[in-house]
Amino acid sequence: MSERGSGFVPGLEGVVAAETRLSHVDGEAGELVVTGFPVEELARRATFEEVLYLLWHDALPNAGELADLREALSQRRPLPGATLDLLRAAASEGAPPMDALRMATGTVSLGTQGTSPDTDAAYEDALAVVARFPTIVAAYKRLLDGEEPVAPDPRLGHAANYLYMLNGEVPGEGSVRALETYLNTVADHGLNASTFAARVIVSTRSDLVSAVVGALGALKGPLHGGAPGPALDVVFEIGEAHRAEAVLCEKLGRGERLMGFGHRVYKVRDPRADVLATAAELLYASDGDEALYELALEVERTAVALLAEYKPGRGLQTNVEFYTALLLHGLGLSTELFTPTFAVGRVAGWTAHCFEQLERGRLIRPQSEYVGERDREWVPMGDR
Amino acid sequence: MSERGSGFVPGLEGVVAAETRLSHVDGEAGELVVTGFPVEELARRATFEEVLYLLWHDALPNAGELADLREALSQRRPLPGATLDLLRAAASEGAPPMDALRMATGTVSLGTQGTSPDTDAAYEDALAVVARFPTIVAAYKRLLDGEEPVAPDPRLGHAANYLYMLNGEVPGEGSVRALETYLNTVADHGLNASTFAARVIVSTRSDLVSAVVGALGALKGPLHGGAPGPALDVVFEIGEAHRAEAVLCEKLGRGERLMGFGHRVYKVRDPRADVLATAAELLYASDGDEALYELALEVERTAVALLAEYKPGRGLQTNVEFYTALLLHGLGLSTELFTPTFAVGRVAGWTAHCFEQLERGRLIRPQSEYVGERDREWVPMGDR
Repeated sequence: MSERGSGFVPGLEGVVAAETRLSHVDGEAGELVVTGFPVEELARRATFEEVLYLLWHDALPNAGELADLREALSQRRPLPGATLDLLRAAASEGAPPMDALRMATGTVSLGTQGTSPDTDAAYEDALAVVARFPTIVAAYKRLLDGEEPVAPDPRLGHAANYLYMLNGEVPGEGSVRALETYLNTVADHGLNASTFAARVIVSTRSDLVSAVVGALGALKGPLHGGAPGPALDVVFEIGEAHRAEAVLCEKLGRGERLMGFGHRVYKVRDPRADVLATAAELLYASDGDEALYELALEVERTAVALLAEYKPGRGLQTNVEFYTALLLHGLGLSTELFTPTFAVGRVAGWTAHCFEQLERGRLIRPQSEYVGERDREWVPMGDR
Repeated sequence: MSERGSGFVPGLEGVVAAETRLSHVDGEAGELVVTGFPVEELARRATFEEVLYLLWHDALPNAGELADLREALSQRRPLPGATLDLLRAAASEGAPPMDALRMATGTVSLGTQGTSPDTDAAYEDALAVVARFPTIVAAYKRLLDGEEPVAPDPRLGHAANYLYMLNGEVPGEGSVRALETYLNTVADHGLNASTFAARVIVSTRSDLVSAVVGALGALKGPLHGGAPGPALDVVFEIGEAHRAEAVLCEKLGRGERLMGFGHRVYKVRDPRADVLATAAELLYASDGDEALYELALEVERTAVALLAEYKPGRGLQTNVEFYTALLLHGLGLSTELFTPTFAVGRVAGWTAHCFEQLERGRLIRPQSEYVGERDREWVPMGDR
């Protein structure tokens, strides 16, 4: 077989590279299905562990199954000394949190079995990466801030323990519910670039740690998950609701892109935005800065109206970044934690896609089209 | 846009996912073109640094350019303390060398700039990973064996220094030439799974360290580069030339696959096998166990003849694994170093593909087809 195929498809746009039961994105209808549930049905009710169980096993866990999964995860939260040493070294250079998370995740192979074509080793790897993501992110954030890491508390659930390790205080119920909802909302989203990278890697029957490390590498790119901070910056810049229209008009008049609006796939409203908007409303009502929430809402209304006027026919709606930023800010997370926290949720989907890919077991190996020279001849150094 | 595409293509077989000037595999003709040169024209003449320059810049370097590249690489060979600490921790658990290489490569972001959408940072990352691969592999091998790492020698070329760091002795010319030829032969090979993984990751405009770490994760899978040792085992098992036919007939009669023969793409002889056969002949004639070389040749002749008889029409020829094993064994490398040494060569291609992908700049993001349930409703815990 030669490297000639059916013609170059830039970005593999429109090519179906996997069948999946994990999630379904319908951008025309503005729908996201996660393991058979509309995202709005699932995200606000489930704990993160329940969504993880659904993704891995395609069924809601009963009480015993859920307790077993919680226990398996909480046992695997502590970091080995080698991982902590590496995080300290990274913090001493001020490495970006996503780099630190990628580096530290590579070391999850220490203390587990790193090479795992068989399903049990894959399951062990999956438990370990899911369990350790929050510990790595929280420990690294504290080290960056010159503080010592807080040891995980095995009595707390996955989401609650993440906030606990970040802040050193057991979080309130409202904050935990908001974070569970966020993690559930972003847990899986079709075959995005990071999920696809994970599937390509594990399609060689490599191990899940390798696949998740590759996925993190893809996620940190600015065209994927690497730039979620600026969505809220415009809200802070506007500061007061009555200034929204003037500031936004000025930006649009200068041809600036408004961060937090528009999505490559969703042509109507992103269903995740609605889920996160409701979660943010609850969080800010119970626990937060209600004035900021009202301001954000006013900025959103104004921006959507102005975008319809300035860019008619484009259908630019509030995207998931806008309410992600509002929600995570309300939870006290700094902007540099937004992408790592996204990863804390998305690793559920990555590992589930790896299981699915291992079950089907076909090597993902497309073709390339050669566009270079031919029949070059060697030229000795003296003649170059 | 919905997640519906043009139909599921398992393994993306026949789909063209990239245009490249780097290499061209023609399996029907048994040809491999690397940067415009037939592999047999290039591999035996060039140093590894010259092939690297060709892949990165599409031209043979003049004396000044080559000296600059050698200098840039040799400056970047030493490992930071954090990387060495991690290798020591991995060695204390006896982690497989490919896991150690993947983990340690993740830390190349320390001491370089890890986040690099722009070309200069990408070039810095590329230099650092190419330069440090041999140092990491050699240091880890020595730590596994209970020995201290040998510091790189900046006076030696890339290939010579790798053998020096492994053995603590400056290698002879014949060994260096054999290793250069091997590294050049495997430096690039179309859009294999690891190269594709690297392109997917960097297509999000992530950094090159992330892409190379992902590629290593793919390479270590047994369906890709992860199982190159057994090709030579049958030679050792046969032991004496007159036993070749009997032992091989018995294996084929039991339906065993003969490792080292047959390739998914090459339907005639793998051109790399010829290049490595010649390199092995030279190496064993100058420096090695000639009897082993003659035995391997006899095993190969017998195997190819028997395969034509037992599996007619399949065109099963000696593949690159067979002579790779013979050559690397002749260089004194143990089987566990075969895949990491393959990576020492292939990282040239990975980094070059990353540059190419960054130049084109299109996110690689195929679709998935949803095959799961729909409209599931939430069930409270008590009712499960």
